[in-house]
Amino acid sequence: MELSDRILVKEIGAILRQNGQTLSVAESCTGGLVGMLLTSEPGSSKWFAGGVIAYTDRIKTDLLGVPSEMIQEFGAVSNEVVAAMAGGVRNLTGTDYSVSISGIAGPTGGTHEKPVGTVCMAVDSDGFSTAVMKHFSHSHSYSREVVRQASASYLLGMLYSGLRKDGK
Amino acid sequence: MELSDRILVKEIGAILRQNGQTLSVAESCTGGLVGMLLTSEPGSSKWFAGGVIAYTDRIKTDLLGVPSEMIQEFGAVSNEVVAAMAGGVRNLTGTDYSVSISGIAGPTGGTHEKPVGTVCMAVDSDGFSTAVMKHFSHSHSYSREVVRQASASYLLGMLYSGLRKDGK
Repeated sequence: MELSDRILVKEIGAILRQNGQTLSVAESCTGGLVGMLLTSEPGSSKWFAGGVIAYTDRIKTDLLGVPSEMIQEFGAVSNEVVAAMAGGVRNLTGTDYSVSISGIAGPTGGTHEKPVGTVCMAVDSDGFSTAVMKHFSHSHSYSREVVRQASASYLLGMLYSGLRKDGK
Repeated sequence: MELSDRILVKEIGAILRQNGQTLSVAESCTGGLVGMLLTSEPGSSKWFAGGVIAYTDRIKTDLLGVPSEMIQEFGAVSNEVVAAMAGGVRNLTGTDYSVSISGIAGPTGGTHEKPVGTVCMAVDSDGFSTAVMKHFSHSHSYSREVVRQASASYLLGMLYSGLRKDGK
């Protein structure tokens, strides 16, 4: 685990704990990495509830309530779907905040429009969500592991920024 | 990621793929680490469905259907509860196999009976589950991270053994 992730998680945990707020995750391409990073912090059960590893589309629809028409129209890697995943997991777990992630980690599965390294991420709080699409493969040297690590770190940064903003 | 985990995951994926079978996870103390390890393998979506990060007792009961009386009687870290978690996530996801894990990663939360490093793990297939309790802290030098990594590796080994046995 990288030091920068460790520091981000400590800060995220401190803010949530101070505010008495809770967090959940919905992960596709990272398969549990974001939850693993968050729970690396001792005492994280005070603010981290858990979530859903939604690796297949079926779990996205059946467990998280993402409309299958939405997946068909926009693709599982889209801002629309990650926003729905985040909202779904927050409803399911009853947390104050949630984060979600869905991407093409590779080495296969990329398209011209969405090449390997394309990852969508969302932060949701009380129905107000922010979703972004990022490309983590500009150099063509990013491996599956690097795409997953880089996107998980980016999502932690997004969550931290959101928490800081909400606290103002 | 350790080489031994990488080899185990490759073998697990190869067997499941060959048999056309699927796998889900229910993770408490590891917070997503087992799912992350399984999905480090390219093409894992062919055999890995996803699962539930059940970090709090509420998610264990509400999402996985573990009876709250069971948690009260045996504790969240018990063979009874991990067996129920594995059964619950397998029902929820409709997979052929499931694994579950719940433990005391520390540094706090240990008791005389269940010291830090106590981890329960289960493998479930078609309602037939195997659950074990292990202690990963005999040396008193095991950190939270080591307990989580060691127990995740152990669970992968349990799953691999189960798959090999079932294949005979």
